[in-house]
Amino acid sequence: MAESMSRLKERLNDVSRLQQALAVLGWDQQVYMPPGGAESRAEQIGTLDRMAHEMLIADETGELIEAARSELNGSAPDSDEASLIRVVNRDYEQSKKIPAELVREMSQHAVLAQQAWVKARAENDFAAFAPYLSKTIDLSRRVADYLGYEGERYDALLDLFEPGMKTAHVAAIFADLKAELVPLVAAIAERADRVSDAVVHQSFDEAKQEEFGKAMAAAFGFDFTRGRLDRTVHPFATGFSRNDVRITTRYDPNFLNPSLFSTLHEAGHGMYEQGIGETLDGTMLGNGASLGVHESQSRLWENIVGRGRDTWQHFYPRLQETFPEQLGNVDLDTFYGAINRVHPSLIRVEADEVTYNLHIMLRFEMERELLDGKLAVEDAPEAWNEKMRAYLGITPPNDAEGVLQDVHWSGGMMGYFPTYSIGTILSAQLFDAAMRAHPNIPEEMRSGRFDTLHGWLVENVYRHGRKFEPNELITRATGEPLQSRSYVVYLKGKFGELYGLNS
Amino acid sequence: MAESMSRLKERLNDVSRLQQALAVLGWDQQVYMPPGGAESRAEQIGTLDRMAHEMLIADETGELIEAARSELNGSAPDSDEASLIRVVNRDYEQSKKIPAELVREMSQHAVLAQQAWVKARAENDFAAFAPYLSKTIDLSRRVADYLGYEGERYDALLDLFEPGMKTAHVAAIFADLKAELVPLVAAIAERADRVSDAVVHQSFDEAKQEEFGKAMAAAFGFDFTRGRLDRTVHPFATGFSRNDVRITTRYDPNFLNPSLFSTLHEAGHGMYEQGIGETLDGTMLGNGASLGVHESQSRLWENIVGRGRDTWQHFYPRLQETFPEQLGNVDLDTFYGAINRVHPSLIRVEADEVTYNLHIMLRFEMERELLDGKLAVEDAPEAWNEKMRAYLGITPPNDAEGVLQDVHWSGGMMGYFPTYSIGTILSAQLFDAAMRAHPNIPEEMRSGRFDTLHGWLVENVYRHGRKFEPNELITRATGEPLQSRSYVVYLKGKFGELYGLNS
Repeated sequence: MAESMSRLKERLNDVSRLQQALAVLGWDQQVYMPPGGAESRAEQIGTLDRMAHEMLIADETGELIEAARSELNGSAPDSDEASLIRVVNRDYEQSKKIPAELVREMSQHAVLAQQAWVKARAENDFAAFAPYLSKTIDLSRRVADYLGYEGERYDALLDLFEPGMKTAHVAAIFADLKAELVPLVAAIAERADRVSDAVVHQSFDEAKQEEFGKAMAAAFGFDFTRGRLDRTVHPFATGFSRNDVRITTRYDPNFLNPSLFSTLHEAGHGMYEQGIGETLDGTMLGNGASLGVHESQSRLWENIVGRGRDTWQHFYPRLQETFPEQLGNVDLDTFYGAINRVHPSLIRVEADEVTYNLHIMLRFEMERELLDGKLAVEDAPEAWNEKMRAYLGITPPNDAEGVLQDVHWSGGMMGYFPTYSIGTILSAQLFDAAMRAHPNIPEEMRSGRFDTLHGWLVENVYRHGRKFEPNELITRATGEPLQSRSYVVYLKGKFGELYGLNS
Repeated sequence: MAESMSRLKERLNDVSRLQQALAVLGWDQQVYMPPGGAESRAEQIGTLDRMAHEMLIADETGELIEAARSELNGSAPDSDEASLIRVVNRDYEQSKKIPAELVREMSQHAVLAQQAWVKARAENDFAAFAPYLSKTIDLSRRVADYLGYEGERYDALLDLFEPGMKTAHVAAIFADLKAELVPLVAAIAERADRVSDAVVHQSFDEAKQEEFGKAMAAAFGFDFTRGRLDRTVHPFATGFSRNDVRITTRYDPNFLNPSLFSTLHEAGHGMYEQGIGETLDGTMLGNGASLGVHESQSRLWENIVGRGRDTWQHFYPRLQETFPEQLGNVDLDTFYGAINRVHPSLIRVEADEVTYNLHIMLRFEMERELLDGKLAVEDAPEAWNEKMRAYLGITPPNDAEGVLQDVHWSGGMMGYFPTYSIGTILSAQLFDAAMRAHPNIPEEMRSGRFDTLHGWLVENVYRHGRKFEPNELITRATGEPLQSRSYVVYLKGKFGELYGLNS
């Protein structure tokens, strides 16, 4: 290997190892750390984070990138090494652009704003949180200006989470989708009583819930010899290498959905991490391409597969065997309805497949308007409520269940929300492409086999890690950039049938 | 704070944070890591370990130590800052003395020798392991010679685990102890049938075992808001700060002792870590003074307290309530005998309080002889078996249960074994001193209270962390350096009574 490339890799591997250790510290913090450990854990994380950051932005890194680039000669642009240089150069340039002082100010603000948000939400007092939201917006503007952008300012923020994705493109896709969703939600609302979820609200033994969820995740392709499932209040997925991926879920003894679908959601994230190419493991390319692409995998496995009729043709008899008292006399159609019931509701994280994206669009629209000053912070609660009425037909009774419900803005994260919908939309686009390549996928699913689908995703998405920006990856996999057509067809088909709208 | 001291502390805190992160990685590796994670974990640990080591032995550290020392002026030698300089300077000098190449050779050897040992033990083939043992001895000699020593070579190795402790001092104490133990073991062997452990070999529900063990550990003083108990094949204790201490145990559904006494043993280690002074937390002084002092706490809480009659006067009725079927009709004397039964056996880690130290002395004597060439490697099995006959009256039927039983020599660790007995002996010396200061301790124990004893240990041992070398710490706490008198009196009293030898 050429000298500079070799030295660059060594240096970047140190950064990666620190980042992996940080992921272990973060996992333990959320899963097993006793309460007393919080303070020292924050210091451990702070120290390792600083070391990794300093190592990445050091001038030596930039010099090695330059030198290694000149050694590449004719390497194909999609080779591992050319990709490493391209991606790491982006990380390096982006990190250098934001002054250390601003990074410090943002971390500080995040701590204070989050405390203020917890209190404001508990006391339903938006006015108390407003100054912190203003500061989040101000800091976000400064970050965007340091990073630079060609189109609109929001591009710079979106790019942090979804590299290369443009606000105008996302806005156009969302607009198309919204035009379809709002009437769909309204039509379903008129037929709400066709579907009940009573059967999933019964008493379900937690150990059996766990066992069943693990069996389904394993059948989908999550490898438990290279990962594990634990319990946390807020489910999440994280990876320390492709061979050590941790997912978590939560259990409600009187409601089947939370543990089962959180397990499948996080298993989707986990399978992505487990599927990253071996040559990329432990390098700066050994993670998912973006938050949106990651979310496409959690959504695909949770919803398109995990709430799909084909899948349950195989698994439902097994679920009935596991819970004979609760489900022995419940037919598949009733159960399928119960896990797919559509119900406009106030809280994003509890939303169903149809209404979920409207929650996101509302936030995306507000973020853009807040950032460019078209919407004043003090008008945010009313803007929120108006959009809720327009999109979902309901009005939050208070700000705690409205504009104050999410943690993101208090953490300083603007530009993050759209990645949830990008992922959701992309899940259908990828599933479509896999079906075109392998029309036998539904038949396999009906017999509890998922290896063709899983294999297609590994081949076309997972193994590439961070090598390609989202739209390039999507185009390579599906033949076109992100589009909402597949998702609209999916939703209308599935929920049109469930609610009898297609006649 | 003076400039150089402040910069030194900053630098050392980074080293400490890396070491704490390493402890988290090690804990996870043993407790929850899926099998696939082994390779990447080894790389993460390797990277962080190298960073911590490089930071510690950098010339800048040495320069800051010198500069900070000159800023100390009239600080008392037992002040936190003077102690930090003294201890870190020792770490620094010791680490600098061993060439990096030798460190690498030792790590490599440890991996290969451990693999060879696993195979040799499984196949009962000492000859296959002999070359690795020879290399361990050779490497140990080279390490000792680089470190330097005044008395004998073994001093340099012992000093790595037990700072400042001399081989001659340990040998003299062991010789005294052995002269008492060998006849005691023989006398007990003649009356072996006075005590049976049948009642602890019954079926005990694991969840109840866990609950009871946790309750006892909490009563002793282990703080579960600043620590937790998990399950592993080999129980251990580790700490990431005084406020985050992890202990583990193992469960045998048909034998009460393993989980209960492993929990109390590790809780003893854990209470030491939890009791380290707040001002030392997160610094290079924020650990135990030595392996021996650490072991004194596990032994004190497991054996002197945890297998003591006073303690069980309080806890036994509660244990009977927990296991009424198994123990409802068993009286305290029978139970007390069962958890204190003496039985010469082949395997160190299964040995009782009386025979345990003979296992250690055998190893200590052999290590000294191997190191100075008085014993040839090929004669080690027979030397082992001879000592077993002389000290315990039994002969190993094969080398797997003899000279091949322990992992230490394959890991390159010579000089480690004596710390187990140092700890055991010290446990009685410290308990004696606490009793002299607070004669009401037994009375408190009989009513399930341990705070006076725990408080005395915090005040005289725990809070000092690594500030003092073992013998200084012991002298400060008990008025004299390590001695075996207290331990002999303890053993003869307890087991003389149990086996009716005192009449």
